[in-house]
Amino acid sequence: MTPAPEIAASRWFNSEPLTLAALRGRPVLLHAFQMLCPGCVSHGTPQTQRAFELFKHSDLQVIGLHTVFEHHAAMTPVSLEAFIHEYRLTFPIGVDEAGDGTPIPVTMQRYGMQGTPTSILIGRDGNIVHHGFGQQSDMALGAIIAAELAAPHA
Amino acid sequence: MTPAPEIAASRWFNSEPLTLAALRGRPVLLHAFQMLCPGCVSHGTPQTQRAFELFKHSDLQVIGLHTVFEHHAAMTPVSLEAFIHEYRLTFPIGVDEAGDGTPIPVTMQRYGMQGTPTSILIGRDGNIVHHGFGQQSDMALGAIIAAELAAPHA
Amino acid sequence: MTPAPEIAASRWFNSEPLTLAALRGRPVLLHAFQMLCPGCVSHGTPQTQRAFELFKHSDLQVIGLHTVFEHHAAMTPVSLEAFIHEYRLTFPIGVDEAGDGTPIPVTMQRYGMQGTPTSILIGRDGNIVHHGFGQQSDMALGAIIAAELAAPHA
Amino acid sequence: MTPAPEIAASRWFNSEPLTLAALRGRPVLLHAFQMLCPGCVSHGTPQTQRAFELFKHSDLQVIGLHTVFEHHAAMTPVSLEAFIHEYRLTFPIGVDEAGDGTPIPVTMQRYGMQGTPTSILIGRDGNIVHHGFGQQSDMALGAIIAAELAAPHA
Repeated sequence: MTPAPEIAASRWFNSEPLTLAALRGRPVLLHAFQMLCPGCVSHGTPQTQRAFELFKHSDLQVIGLHTVFEHHAAMTPVSLEAFIHEYRLTFPIGVDEAGDGTPIPVTMQRYGMQGTPTSILIGRDGNIVHHGFGQQSDMALGAIIAAELAAPHA
Repeated sequence: MTPAPEIAASRWFNSEPLTLAALRGRPVLLHAFQMLCPGCVSHGTPQTQRAFELFKHSDLQVIGLHTVFEHHAAMTPVSLEAFIHEYRLTFPIGVDEAGDGTPIPVTMQRYGMQGTPTSILIGRDGNIVHHGFGQQSDMALGAIIAAELAAPHA
Repeated sequence: MTPAPEIAASRWFNSEPLTLAALRGRPVLLHAFQMLCPGCVSHGTPQTQRAFELFKHSDLQVIGLHTVFEHHAAMTPVSLEAFIHEYRLTFPIGVDEAGDGTPIPVTMQRYGMQGTPTSILIGRDGNIVHHGFGQQSDMALGAIIAAELAAPHA
Repeated sequence: MTPAPEIAASRWFNSEPLTLAALRGRPVLLHAFQMLCPGCVSHGTPQTQRAFELFKHSDLQVIGLHTVFEHHAAMTPVSLEAFIHEYRLTFPIGVDEAGDGTPIPVTMQRYGMQGTPTSILIGRDGNIVHHGFGQQSDMALGAIIAAELAAPHA
């Protein structure tokens, strides 16, 4: 069992600030991306939007996290805001808090993410159910989420 | 609750003959297709192959059914066998039994299928959980299967 | 300069019988395919249909050739006819004449084709301009055809 | 005959500054895009890269132009530079000069472009051969370029 570390975001789009602590009891899909990461733009981020829409009647919480670890000056919140608008992203997106003395932002460090895109599923009990780096298939992601949604509540 | 009618197949590829009766207690994904149906070849049939591979360690049973309701002379079992070989399909595939005095084959009639591709999920209890005609998304199909797999056994 | 051998077809769909001899002076795009060849169905054959539509106001002649060299019983003209109907192919398609004592049909042998899909461009002067086996890019094929169309007539 | 207006760029990537005047006698493919325009990122810009590679042995000059007409603060040259790096774009790209009292940049105005992506082919004689807004097919673009390349030089 690996407890999911809390997320640290300096700013939010499409949502009030969110914390895992307040979401305990609900499954959370955490999608880490960068707006200039080609694999995120072509695959991971639209996949997250599809998950947000498919499971909107469940109690799954989808959270995007802009984990900028390179080209920081190129991917500011101003640019991210336009990206969210142009790509019609409607799920909550937080800006991962800048690291102290490191280019890696805080939440990305806490989870030991290897890069972007990364999709993590956190169970109702606050433990990490799945941590996937790179391209995940839609069918596998749908299955992993549904299995957690179907699991008996504590 | 709609009980799933038994399937009627005149010939099998990749498997011994299968019946729903003998599979009671296991979820079954039934994929009806025609080898010359473009939407089957480009979407439904490869999707079924993906489901077969993703869930191979579960007790899901995947069954393809060649439900020829048009161009009968063009889609004989001889042609189907070459199709299965060329498209590297490895899940069990039955040939839906020819209808008596109608172009619609027997199983297709029993289920009231509207055409191909059709994907049907049958639950452990033998009832129809999902009946989808046309293009289904991979994420939704993965979720529907996983939810049934997670459901408590009787 | 490699003169294009004459094509030998036992039957035609979407057209009266065609010969290269009668087409001399016009460029010809010759597309060899098999209806159960996945790379043909997903790429080569729809690409040929796009070329047929894009260049319909030019004097390019598009010819499909069903060059069956395996699974002969599975890809008869009866099956091909249904394939052409279901995939909405509207360009002329000939059935390559059966080989004598060999599974390789006559035209396929004459051109030394390595398999399917193969796309060959024959120039106005009857010589082979391009012989491509496997997946060709749309952009390259469009360019090769346009260059031949733009070449000065003899 | 519509003479192609001169381009006005405030900065260049992957190239020394270019002018149409200096390129007279060579065909020019001018691709106008914005780094946060989804249709550019998924279709127009990779298509331009393909054209750059396919025609590299010809005398075609490919020019990208970053024509920002919205979200100006989000698409600065700093962000564009990272975009070019991440998407592995290797053709020359100019930053369209900011408009005076209008959000529309200078070259975009001169050409009367309707939006992004826009792909324009300029002939050897400096006239506009093709002005395409939105998605162009690869085959058609390849054909238009090849036809111009094959046209007799003055």
